[in-house]
Amino acid sequence: MASGGGVKENIIRKGAELVHARGYTATGLQDILAGAGVPKGSFYFYFKSKEDFGIELIDYYAGFISGIFTRYLRDDKISPLKRIDNLLGFYMSFFRKSGYRLGCPIGNLSLELGDAGNRFHEKLNDAIEGLIAHLEFCLDEAKTAGEIPDSMDTKSAAWFIFHGFEGAIMHMKAAKSAEPLRVFKSCIFGYLQPPRVQTRIK
Amino acid sequence: MASGGGVKENIIRKGAELVHARGYTATGLQDILAGAGVPKGSFYFYFKSKEDFGIELIDYYAGFISGIFTRYLRDDKISPLKRIDNLLGFYMSFFRKSGYRLGCPIGNLSLELGDAGNRFHEKLNDAIEGLIAHLEFCLDEAKTAGEIPDSMDTKSAAWFIFHGFEGAIMHMKAAKSAEPLRVFKSCIFGYLQPPRVQTRIK
Repeated sequence: MASGGGVKENIIRKGAELVHARGYTATGLQDILAGAGVPKGSFYFYFKSKEDFGIELIDYYAGFISGIFTRYLRDDKISPLKRIDNLLGFYMSFFRKSGYRLGCPIGNLSLELGDAGNRFHEKLNDAIEGLIAHLEFCLDEAKTAGEIPDSMDTKSAAWFIFHGFEGAIMHMKAAKSAEPLRVFKSCIFGYLQPPRVQTRIK
Repeated sequence: MASGGGVKENIIRKGAELVHARGYTATGLQDILAGAGVPKGSFYFYFKSKEDFGIELIDYYAGFISGIFTRYLRDDKISPLKRIDNLLGFYMSFFRKSGYRLGCPIGNLSLELGDAGNRFHEKLNDAIEGLIAHLEFCLDEAKTAGEIPDSMDTKSAAWFIFHGFEGAIMHMKAAKSAEPLRVFKSCIFGYLQPPRVQTRIK
């Protein structure tokens, strides 16, 4: 199955590119197969249905983004809050280079397919929770390092970062500008590091 | 044109319902016209193209949500922060009743159509800016009332609220739960009203 695996990966990779740009519903299997250079008949050798393909696509996107989050948020040579700063900086640079297009594939599909049945919303929620877990891990380390208040609930704060970041990407896609990401980054650090005045009081 | 206006409004209203549930691309004109009880041929009497229809649809959604934001955020019988609390409470109750489905039509279309040409992203950005302006107005009143720190940049804070709220709705749609909205609401009030210790210092 070595070469079969390669063909399947080609279909997923080409599908990921097209679905990111057009959305799931608007992307025809034929376009994916033509793009991947795979004969039309062989899709159903690899996937039971377009839905099965969609589910594997979510895994693919989640794995890809999780790799980026891991690289930035678990880099223990760098202080925890600086890792979050670097991650946001990476995405700002990435989106600037790509013309503020496309956005987050997990966010896009959550809105497009969140009501398209239990398999989709559960898989998307798993993907979101997996990404949030990286943020929570990093915030726990930030707390240990004394970078954020001891009283901060890191799970809630991780959700809050994820929500704000996804919303800022959405705004960016409409505004075609870096400004929403810049404002989000500045505000979220204001939240994570409340005024120093508190420290002085202790 | 009185009855003509009525037919056009029917098309927009039915279209708004279907596009909110299925997305813009996946909604066929035929379904909208059948749903609105309008003969197939008459769509182009009211709209030059599906794109023109989409642009008017964004205006319709923006006007609808702006009405809700106005009702809550400009109600001067209520303290400004309590108005934001009430708005979020209204949406939490609304989404709970609707099974955490659909989400925000402006958010959905920003991700679906943000890259579909300048008319779409500019119209969507105008809609977003219009909604954010209500939040900024309310935050300015909160500052005057001493409910938020004098040092807070209300424009940035309004963006930050909007971003977090849209991201929380996205997460809610995948999680099929109120929890993302609850966490967002708690965190954003933590941001808007930093620890009271600051007040004591003055």
